[in-house]
Amino acid sequence: MTIEPTQLSLLTSSTWSPISGGIATPEGFLASGISAGLKPSGKKDLALLYAPNGACCSGTFTQSVARAYCVDLCVDRLKTSEGKVRAVIINSGQANACTGIRGKIDSEIITHELAQRLGLSNEEVLICSTGVIGEPIPVEKVKNHLDQLIKGLDKEASLDAANAILTTDLQVKQIAYQAVVGDQRISIGGMAKGSGMIHPSMATMLSYITCDVSIDYIIWSDMIKRVAESSFNAITVDGDTSTNDAFLAFSSGPKLDPKYLSNLEEGLHLTAQHLAKAIARDGEGANCLLEIKVEGAPSDLDAQAIARTIASSSLVKTAVHGSDPNWGRIIAALGRAGIAFNFNDVKLWIGPYEIFSHGTPQNFDRQTVSNFMKARLKGRYLIDDLISIKLSIGLGKGSATAWGCDLSDQYVRINADYTT
Amino acid sequence: MTIEPTQLSLLTSSTWSPISGGIATPEGFLASGISAGLKPSGKKDLALLYAPNGACCSGTFTQSVARAYCVDLCVDRLKTSEGKVRAVIINSGQANACTGIRGKIDSEIITHELAQRLGLSNEEVLICSTGVIGEPIPVEKVKNHLDQLIKGLDKEASLDAANAILTTDLQVKQIAYQAVVGDQRISIGGMAKGSGMIHPSMATMLSYITCDVSIDYIIWSDMIKRVAESSFNAITVDGDTSTNDAFLAFSSGPKLDPKYLSNLEEGLHLTAQHLAKAIARDGEGANCLLEIKVEGAPSDLDAQAIARTIASSSLVKTAVHGSDPNWGRIIAALGRAGIAFNFNDVKLWIGPYEIFSHGTPQNFDRQTVSNFMKARLKGRYLIDDLISIKLSIGLGKGSATAWGCDLSDQYVRINADYTT
Repeated sequence: MTIEPTQLSLLTSSTWSPISGGIATPEGFLASGISAGLKPSGKKDLALLYAPNGACCSGTFTQSVARAYCVDLCVDRLKTSEGKVRAVIINSGQANACTGIRGKIDSEIITHELAQRLGLSNEEVLICSTGVIGEPIPVEKVKNHLDQLIKGLDKEASLDAANAILTTDLQVKQIAYQAVVGDQRISIGGMAKGSGMIHPSMATMLSYITCDVSIDYIIWSDMIKRVAESSFNAITVDGDTSTNDAFLAFSSGPKLDPKYLSNLEEGLHLTAQHLAKAIARDGEGANCLLEIKVEGAPSDLDAQAIARTIASSSLVKTAVHGSDPNWGRIIAALGRAGIAFNFNDVKLWIGPYEIFSHGTPQNFDRQTVSNFMKARLKGRYLIDDLISIKLSIGLGKGSATAWGCDLSDQYVRINADYTT
Repeated sequence: MTIEPTQLSLLTSSTWSPISGGIATPEGFLASGISAGLKPSGKKDLALLYAPNGACCSGTFTQSVARAYCVDLCVDRLKTSEGKVRAVIINSGQANACTGIRGKIDSEIITHELAQRLGLSNEEVLICSTGVIGEPIPVEKVKNHLDQLIKGLDKEASLDAANAILTTDLQVKQIAYQAVVGDQRISIGGMAKGSGMIHPSMATMLSYITCDVSIDYIIWSDMIKRVAESSFNAITVDGDTSTNDAFLAFSSGPKLDPKYLSNLEEGLHLTAQHLAKAIARDGEGANCLLEIKVEGAPSDLDAQAIARTIASSSLVKTAVHGSDPNWGRIIAALGRAGIAFNFNDVKLWIGPYEIFSHGTPQNFDRQTVSNFMKARLKGRYLIDDLISIKLSIGLGKGSATAWGCDLSDQYVRINADYTT
């Protein structure tokens, strides 16, 4: 087995440790991933996630007005069933967005056929689609592969599923964590796909998390919203939000003692942040993971606004791509984030180097900082692909982190050449 | 004299006709542009605009919190003097932003030295700076060239001044219009510089307009705000707003009969839109002028939000660069503009081709539309570099237009390699 680069910089906590595995690692969950001929490349393009009886699912979705019908279907069925969802089918290749009434019918046919084969009601089955907007799903191909997809359901098929949901992603994105909380051993699994149209606006990609304890649906839903906010909503690749973004999280198993809720939430945060950062560092054309840490803002929300503005700036992102410690662009992005500040209180670091303080640039060696950045750009397949920018604003106690990536010529080529 | 490409697609109206000339064309105004050694290239880098006695100046400025001190100085002096400004000195090469207390002192020294030489009070002199953020102005070089700059003041030196304010711009941006209104012959002149950090947020570049009639300061100021809104605030190149953006407009001469105010405003709109579009089409790495026309929105403001979101989308801009009629990205950008709409009412055209209608893509020939786009991308130095995208939302009577450009590999290279 090759080591996945995104596995190398795993977060740990006193409670949670990363383990090998993925979406089907938690007890009772099964996954499957096959090629149904939806992608011209012949790569895997159809995934199924199957949850145990009694599972509870909550989700966050794209805020786009132009969302695909599959998102409407997920939202409606989650509401009707109060989260009692048993299966999600995910196709890659066709977003089935902007496909008119056909998009609705196709989503309903596919979930109906799958529900029948699994002995479930329609309400217990969701569908997510990703790929080219305007392309309908080849429904017959999907129908013809449903039996194979179901037959492939396996505890060991997490990687197959994680592969089948990718589009322009270069790397598979999956993770599992484990902890002993009280007298319960809990596992959390996750998988995600990027890697264009990534920008904070609820969940901004496809992402799935499972865990093998169960908690009250309302508490679970609130927890999932908070988890999304500090992970999938804190990343940006290109400022475009998609028609199809969805983050679905399942809990299933023995009841969790409510006194351990915060422990569980910590594990979910670790899992979601790992996946979010994997999406950012595998952004289209990306060569590094860009981390923007903001401290000393009037509030966490202010810090978030600043961090996200800087992580989104094309000029900051191109400077990072050029290994250029161009702090002026960072300060300019700070300036347009809409939070009043005093220049003299602002401090700025790139990696370990103090760059700006007391209203003026510090006496740093431009070449040294540039070399530091360059090493991380080239280091994509090493642990150290992280370029961290830290800003202290000196106004209060608000802090936040956002993640992004550099903006490269490759991003332009990938997106200029995508459909024609 | 070579024909300037941006002069080829001039707007005309029943009243106003484009004439040859620039910022110093209106009666009584003088301009000058020299090389003071501020740019390593040795190109012109210091400009002076001189207004007649009695001139009235109004301005709009960057909304960035991190604005350069020269912007503070302009705002303060315009307020103190109620627009009674006689001269603006503009240096290119150093933005003099984020330069701490030195930025303030240098701006004051330069304007003081200039005021003394011109026999003006400090309040009558403004300064604008553009270039690298964090770089202070070499004040001694500027001082040593002030006499030469003043000596160069001339009615025929508009082009010198327009050249001296450029940074990464590839093309000079100037224009003049003339009309006979009532029994008055009125001239309007303008010049501007782009071409990175261009995004709607008040004035988003350096831009100057002069005209040789005078009107009440309050009326003039309101008019200038409206003019900025439909021109400089309707363009985007890269979503980054600058520390130094300023738009200054001078009126001077015989009083205008108030019944002709709307005629004058039309001329100002034509001038400002010409300059704004010249900035967009000369955006860093740009190969075309991208025009987004939105109709049928609930309000003009809604239409504006949609047009600007689409013009700002990296995915739309890269698709345009790839001559790719990827309408899905346009619809996705529409979807995240925050205005509710019904898919079935949306119509979308690229150039003359109807692409999307009644909730689904129309039967257009992808190759034909791609060829149409490609011809305009290559046609940068022809009249026809305009790729127009029109959206009809079917909700109301609101309309707006925004301008931008494609996003190219060259944009990335220009900005990855800018300072190191």
